[in-house]
Amino acid sequence: MTLIFKSDADSWADWRQHLRDAAPDLACRDWDEPGDDDSVEFALVWKPPFGELRRRFRNLKAIFSLGAGVDHLLADSDLPPGVPIVRMVEPELTRGMTEYVVLHVLRYHRQTPLFEEQQREHVWRVVPTPTAPKRRVGIMGLGVIGQDSLRVLSALGFALSGWSRTAKSIPGVTCHHGLDGLTAFLTEVDILVCLLPYTADTDNILNRNLLDRLPRGAYLINAGRGGLQDEDDILAALDSGRLAGVTLDVFREEPLPAGHAFWDHPNVTITPHNAGTAQAWSGAAEVAANIKRIRDGQAPLNIADPAAGY
Amino acid sequence: MTLIFKSDADSWADWRQHLRDAAPDLACRDWDEPGDDDSVEFALVWKPPFGELRRRFRNLKAIFSLGAGVDHLLADSDLPPGVPIVRMVEPELTRGMTEYVVLHVLRYHRQTPLFEEQQREHVWRVVPTPTAPKRRVGIMGLGVIGQDSLRVLSALGFALSGWSRTAKSIPGVTCHHGLDGLTAFLTEVDILVCLLPYTADTDNILNRNLLDRLPRGAYLINAGRGGLQDEDDILAALDSGRLAGVTLDVFREEPLPAGHAFWDHPNVTITPHNAGTAQAWSGAAEVAANIKRIRDGQAPLNIADPAAGY
Repeated sequence: MTLIFKSDADSWADWRQHLRDAAPDLACRDWDEPGDDDSVEFALVWKPPFGELRRRFRNLKAIFSLGAGVDHLLADSDLPPGVPIVRMVEPELTRGMTEYVVLHVLRYHRQTPLFEEQQREHVWRVVPTPTAPKRRVGIMGLGVIGQDSLRVLSALGFALSGWSRTAKSIPGVTCHHGLDGLTAFLTEVDILVCLLPYTADTDNILNRNLLDRLPRGAYLINAGRGGLQDEDDILAALDSGRLAGVTLDVFREEPLPAGHAFWDHPNVTITPHNAGTAQAWSGAAEVAANIKRIRDGQAPLNIADPAAGY
Repeated sequence: MTLIFKSDADSWADWRQHLRDAAPDLACRDWDEPGDDDSVEFALVWKPPFGELRRRFRNLKAIFSLGAGVDHLLADSDLPPGVPIVRMVEPELTRGMTEYVVLHVLRYHRQTPLFEEQQREHVWRVVPTPTAPKRRVGIMGLGVIGQDSLRVLSALGFALSGWSRTAKSIPGVTCHHGLDGLTAFLTEVDILVCLLPYTADTDNILNRNLLDRLPRGAYLINAGRGGLQDEDDILAALDSGRLAGVTLDVFREEPLPAGHAFWDHPNVTITPHNAGTAQAWSGAAEVAANIKRIRDGQAPLNIADPAAGY
């Protein structure tokens, strides 16, 4: 029983060790290591080349995504048929995303870019900042990560709302859903956080049509996927003053091309798609538990729905 | 029955309105407005000139600080004798401080200065960031503000410790106290947050002797008082690498003098003493409730102890 591993980060040694601890009878092998591909029953992967999972591994029982999203897998039209695709749901990936959301919400809430500019100019000027109950934070995407972010934003006292594809109910959060609920959601958000999965329905959703419904001077944080955003429309919304600032962890093309206007824009903050990363010390146990479920004849937890796209 | 108000911020109109709402029978007057000083029974003040409270107001029953600290009052050797000094304990001041602490802890935890530098240099490079349980945050000062900050840092999952003058017990927080407990506390802190009151005992406590006990490459956030810090020792600790970064909301001299080395230091972040501010919409009710206690013959809540210095 073998698991094949593929990441674009330098994390193989770490995952191997923790998978060994969590599932001692599971052989683990890196994507490029030679070995018997027919013995491979599980794949734990990030962005495998299209078609290769089907071509190389005839006995796959499950494909585990190394990231929360499975768009990198579902985009492959040549996947092995009938093999479940499993989303990575593990506490430390969720926690990293929450850290990122809370950091960047607080950064805008507390006008950090303004105070950084004042420091550069040696200006000491107190600017009154309202406290969290006076700041409306709206989250698009109310899955595990969105709800965990809301938990901490709620502990800080922000005025919270959320939007999701299907109806959700979260205590203390004004919930909207569906395209019909989008305008009511957007018109009352000072800081918009996007954590949506990338699907056919959400492609380019952060476009001019959506941004125009935000209050003037709103902030946008996208830690979902680059495909959610229309990058020209975002630049136009910054130029028009519709958006006062944008923080992006994800981009249409990654790494962000050297000549992209985002790099030098004074009101754009860029991070290199590192908002949340599955941690081997925590995630290996989740993968091992799901493998045990499969071996026990149960369905794995957190199976992606190809029809919904996530 | 009159309350006299003095702030160095432009907040008088706001406080007047909310005090009127909270205590309709209380006349409120600004420090520089003419009127009968003998009718003044309460003062709500920030940094009144030394001696003036005693000289002008013969019938004072309580002096309310507009800030959490009362050092600006206790430094006055010519206070009216026997008049209680009351610390400002109100939810939104506490919340503002917590926001500041959580923002700047997350900023260092998530290596924000590094990613800002990468953006300036158009560099896309993922640097692995541990999640909160692997980061040790230590708070000096475990009063209302310190404990509220710990509440939210705990929701984020940080490894937490605290230090205070007298012994405290806080679930989930490794608590140390007294000078004897300082070394054990400091040697296991990655991000040190100082929220101590400024007293004879804490004057210059953030000096070389203390900083040298931190792990190499630690971060310091001081949102207490400028008098707590030895600014030359902090600069030396940054130069030696003992400190990797420092965020300061308070300074020995405020506004920070134009020529101070902190302004342009690449690893120093400055804010203009605005971490937490009492909010009229929330604090007026607290002041009114304490005035009612006094009129009912009770002692006000949150009286400062001049012997302890806070």
